[in-house]
Amino acid sequence: MTHDQHDGSNDTLAQPTFALIRRLQSSRQARDRAELHFIEGVRNFVTAVDMGAEFEQLIVSKRLLQSTVAQKLVRRVRSRGVPAFTVSPEQFRAVSRSARASGVAAVVKTCWTPLQSMTGNEVGRLWVAIESVRAPGNLGTLIRSCAAASATGLILLGNRADPFDPVVVRASMGATFRQRFVRTSAQRLRQWCDRHGCDVVGVTPDGDEVYHDAAYESPTVLMLGDERKGLSDEQRAVCNRTVRIPMAAGCDSINLGVAGSLLLFEASRG
Amino acid sequence: MTHDQHDGSNDTLAQPTFALIRRLQSSRQARDRAELHFIEGVRNFVTAVDMGAEFEQLIVSKRLLQSTVAQKLVRRVRSRGVPAFTVSPEQFRAVSRSARASGVAAVVKTCWTPLQSMTGNEVGRLWVAIESVRAPGNLGTLIRSCAAASATGLILLGNRADPFDPVVVRASMGATFRQRFVRTSAQRLRQWCDRHGCDVVGVTPDGDEVYHDAAYESPTVLMLGDERKGLSDEQRAVCNRTVRIPMAAGCDSINLGVAGSLLLFEASRG
Repeated sequence: MTHDQHDGSNDTLAQPTFALIRRLQSSRQARDRAELHFIEGVRNFVTAVDMGAEFEQLIVSKRLLQSTVAQKLVRRVRSRGVPAFTVSPEQFRAVSRSARASGVAAVVKTCWTPLQSMTGNEVGRLWVAIESVRAPGNLGTLIRSCAAASATGLILLGNRADPFDPVVVRASMGATFRQRFVRTSAQRLRQWCDRHGCDVVGVTPDGDEVYHDAAYESPTVLMLGDERKGLSDEQRAVCNRTVRIPMAAGCDSINLGVAGSLLLFEASRG
Repeated sequence: MTHDQHDGSNDTLAQPTFALIRRLQSSRQARDRAELHFIEGVRNFVTAVDMGAEFEQLIVSKRLLQSTVAQKLVRRVRSRGVPAFTVSPEQFRAVSRSARASGVAAVVKTCWTPLQSMTGNEVGRLWVAIESVRAPGNLGTLIRSCAAASATGLILLGNRADPFDPVVVRASMGATFRQRFVRTSAQRLRQWCDRHGCDVVGVTPDGDEVYHDAAYESPTVLMLGDERKGLSDEQRAVCNRTVRIPMAAGCDSINLGVAGSLLLFEASRG
């Protein structure tokens, strides 16, 4: 193992760290158990620092890391006592899943918000609720649009979707750290919505109203179905009403990330 | 080589066909020269037949192909004299790039529309114009949204983007066959727009108007920039005006496919 020239650190990426990262990258169970996930890239790292994410470890290749902002934030996070492993470009590429190795990666605490803690102002004004998303890239795109449309976060029904999957995090372009994540059941969500006056709007091809003719009064929860099967019966049972996205004859669907984003930006207009 | 039980065909996938498919899958130059591309999946195939695509060859695994609609259309295309290679599931998987091998694939003519041929009604009402898109999946998503929002097609400026890249075609979910594709230069597009009274609207974070406050009178061309660099100077020079998508503080971007789709669905409301 070789390592970069560096300023004071003489860490290299030890085998246990490497093994932990591999587990966090490839295993949902490992992420859930450790309550940790792996992030990489300048934008993800900078946003994680800005939004106060809890860092466990940094992995830095000084030769690869060009961004001076990121370099400064690496020093800041290290000065708080977070262990930083300075590695060679080769070592960095060995853990990176990105086409362009950025030179900065981290192991970060996963952050979940309990549904019951959301009362008063914490209820927020706009949420997306999902049960399953087949393509992790679509979930990442949705999270990115949630952040851009000033949504409060995502409500994950049941245990299927994982917002801390590295592919999801990468596609979210840092937005993971700008959104709250709540995991609950359809039944508990319905109770919470009743208590706080949330309107749950299902998005489905057989929806009652055209989405841009509908009114969205906050707080609103947008309920989105799976790419192939759409809303499940359980999801439908939580909805107060449904909307549809009108499409050209012969076209029966658009990308799930796109559909969710159309609704998010429509509802965020108020 | 083994092959399926079949009804009258005794073709297997010959080496030259296999080699052609590999070239069409991996090489832009091969697609451009042969004016052919490779498609797979039931939805792509059915839409290609419905929309009158020109087939060169079919590759079918009867054991894999479950859809009775697709089976019927395979027979119809064969009856027109298009060669159909009946292959084993193993052979099919060897050419498939899809996670779920569908059992139907084809070599199809690429279809381009010359800009100058678009006069009168052919001018259409809504177009997307791009110069480069880094992620082929984003271009596919855009094409899918174009079709759903009743756009006429995509105008590709210069030589960089390829709508017949197999990743683009897969992400378009059949919409490739519902849209026109025009390749031209920024200058020629500007002349064509002047001649036919087209309004060219650039989408950019520094746009003059908020996109949902702007009016869109057809014909409209929506000009979209690259994921990282946004609109090029050449693209900006073609625009009559620019619009922006308002975002939450700290968020500077959304997915390109999402941004284009927000504009497409907004403009298609009229």
